[in-house]
Amino acid sequence: MTVDAEEDYARAGLAGSLAPGSSPALIIVDPARVYTEPSCPLYAGAEAACEVMRALLHEARAAGVPTLITRVEHDPSGRTGGLFARKVPATRWFGADSPYAGYIDGLAPAGGDIEIVKQYPSAFAGTSLGATLTALRVDTLLITGLTTSGCIRATATDAMQSGFVPIVVRDAVADRLEGPHEANLFDIQAKIGEVVSADRAGQLLRRRR
Amino acid sequence: MTVDAEEDYARAGLAGSLAPGSSPALIIVDPARVYTEPSCPLYAGAEAACEVMRALLHEARAAGVPTLITRVEHDPSGRTGGLFARKVPATRWFGADSPYAGYIDGLAPAGGDIEIVKQYPSAFAGTSLGATLTALRVDTLLITGLTTSGCIRATATDAMQSGFVPIVVRDAVADRLEGPHEANLFDIQAKIGEVVSADRAGQLLRRRR
Amino acid sequence: MTVDAEEDYARAGLAGSLAPGSSPALIIVDPARVYTEPSCPLYAGAEAACEVMRALLHEARAAGVPTLITRVEHDPSGRTGGLFARKVPATRWFGADSPYAGYIDGLAPAGGDIEIVKQYPSAFAGTSLGATLTALRVDTLLITGLTTSGCIRATATDAMQSGFVPIVVRDAVADRLEGPHEANLFDIQAKIGEVVSADRAGQLLRRRR
Amino acid sequence: MTVDAEEDYARAGLAGSLAPGSSPALIIVDPARVYTEPSCPLYAGAEAACEVMRALLHEARAAGVPTLITRVEHDPSGRTGGLFARKVPATRWFGADSPYAGYIDGLAPAGGDIEIVKQYPSAFAGTSLGATLTALRVDTLLITGLTTSGCIRATATDAMQSGFVPIVVRDAVADRLEGPHEANLFDIQAKIGEVVSADRAGQLLRRRR
Repeated sequence: MTVDAEEDYARAGLAGSLAPGSSPALIIVDPARVYTEPSCPLYAGAEAACEVMRALLHEARAAGVPTLITRVEHDPSGRTGGLFARKVPATRWFGADSPYAGYIDGLAPAGGDIEIVKQYPSAFAGTSLGATLTALRVDTLLITGLTTSGCIRATATDAMQSGFVPIVVRDAVADRLEGPHEANLFDIQAKIGEVVSADRAGQLLRRRR
Repeated sequence: MTVDAEEDYARAGLAGSLAPGSSPALIIVDPARVYTEPSCPLYAGAEAACEVMRALLHEARAAGVPTLITRVEHDPSGRTGGLFARKVPATRWFGADSPYAGYIDGLAPAGGDIEIVKQYPSAFAGTSLGATLTALRVDTLLITGLTTSGCIRATATDAMQSGFVPIVVRDAVADRLEGPHEANLFDIQAKIGEVVSADRAGQLLRRRR
Repeated sequence: MTVDAEEDYARAGLAGSLAPGSSPALIIVDPARVYTEPSCPLYAGAEAACEVMRALLHEARAAGVPTLITRVEHDPSGRTGGLFARKVPATRWFGADSPYAGYIDGLAPAGGDIEIVKQYPSAFAGTSLGATLTALRVDTLLITGLTTSGCIRATATDAMQSGFVPIVVRDAVADRLEGPHEANLFDIQAKIGEVVSADRAGQLLRRRR
Repeated sequence: MTVDAEEDYARAGLAGSLAPGSSPALIIVDPARVYTEPSCPLYAGAEAACEVMRALLHEARAAGVPTLITRVEHDPSGRTGGLFARKVPATRWFGADSPYAGYIDGLAPAGGDIEIVKQYPSAFAGTSLGATLTALRVDTLLITGLTTSGCIRATATDAMQSGFVPIVVRDAVADRLEGPHEANLFDIQAKIGEVVSADRAGQLLRRRR
């Protein structure tokens, strides 16, 4: 969106800001090979964002900040995909029998990383993510992963609606087209949470150490 | 978004379609004077969309289709607004003591309309809307109201994630700026639900009679 | 339940314990006149428990601990009651037109108390309670109110399932019959949360000052 | 509970009844070997109930009624168990490395059965069960499995709170002790849903054919 749009929103009292809390967690939403294998229809050209995800994951683990990584999985009957699997048939490329199944290199859960299995765009929808964050006394969610106009937007919205400050890392999210990518970052910053650089995200993680 | 974007999505197997079910309900999200009073900072110029909402409300009542209307209300302590009230200070204009409080003419609940009180963008978040729809055996939600990039997008996402086919009526939603309005209709059609005209929505309501 | 039952559960590794966190809130579930007016069919003889609720509410306010009070309200159409209003027709006595409508003396929200409007047994179901507690960075919920086998059990279960340590105050909950009252306290202590005395609850509130 | 208790509740207008809908599903909650292996601390002596579960599963499959089977699983980090894993350490016996891991014979998902992975007592908590049922246009949930005072009670409560008529099959649920088993069936019938015999459940399944 344009500078004019930002000014219009500021005048209206939209686009306030949420201060990060003292207890962050890092989530990487769906770092799946479907988005980085050029021959896969879901390819999103997300290599640069994945580099940033890897760096932040390393920092968060080092800082002892809870790290959560999500994965799409439907039950063998295929019916837990619900309406989303009907609306977006391409979700089949996430399946165990897909040539593109699996995590992107360096972004699979390891050690104490928490793995969240999901079926819908939001990492909160139909999962125990919210309960896990609350039980860990997390108050702020650094959000990275794929894709901006789908799972990132939905996860940020639910984080805010659940009481966790959503902080989306601009360099660590990506989408197949620039238009929806930018349009959703604009909406997130305007009404949902904070959009920050990788540097700022690193600071938030390190100040916990 | 452009025709090119639509073609790109179609090739990727995004943008499937959801067939409407046999048991629709109509929801009007936040038909509040804050959006139609020109002096209010939240003014969205939504008069034409409100005309369509009124017509669809009339049709749905006549057809015996459940009608739901939402209203933003915080408890007297002001703390049920949570992070959303902090992020968007302009939500204060919805308050009972605001000069812009109240429903838009012709869009207040009456008769058997179901009123849902909400605090967050999604009409499902922190409300009993989902339980009410299920208890009424609704399978499809015709979504109208304000605004496209905020409460409409969030409500459509949650409808889909909850198992209700979301059908957003293009002429019966509006936003303060054209950019976010169109960008969100594009995302909804691509990944969340169906975007239809008022004529098509009317057909879906009438075929129930 | 008997001592034997407690021993049986302990041997099985049920009945572990949850340590209270450092950031409690106090909730009073449905302190409604329907339970204390002897002529109301819902009368539960809860006067002694109400005394304890009033004392804890006083302590919590003095300690600056968040205080939440719930109230049952259906929308004017009566349809937001869903299946619960069908299953328990006596919920009609909560209605605004009931001779028993209103809060019990000394237990109505005041000042900064947060009021939660609910339609179902659990104070979390169909409300923004969870989001409110998370936004306030609460980690522990002291649970009081009415009745043990209904709204208290359901609220304690959801608190635990949402990540908030549920601490039910034995002297500040009540039920119309002793059997269900004791049976539910047994289940709560065994599998859901901690059942404590009013004295212990007071300590937890005071240590925050 | 006693006949007196039932009379007392009936006089108070508790204990109304919910009519089954026309679109049932059958759920078998946690049919895990932990409950039927005599040497496991969680042994509940549930063999007779399992016979009934098997018979109903057979009937439901034959009738084309959706069948759902739940399984407890924590992520490898062990942290998705949240407060429940802390409160009930015995949940460790469900783990993949437990000598008691796995489904009870004849009760593992097969064919089109839908498998729901859960971490909490309620089969709805932190799962996409509700969305799956809604997407399948189910209105009534026949509830069987283990155990009555834990996962059955919690699942029945959430079914009702979500708008699905909960019908608990008395002969197809069990618990380690008779006291909590009967006390919870009493509460369920009084305030949450319907408790029926296996014969009645069979009728409800067959009338769909």
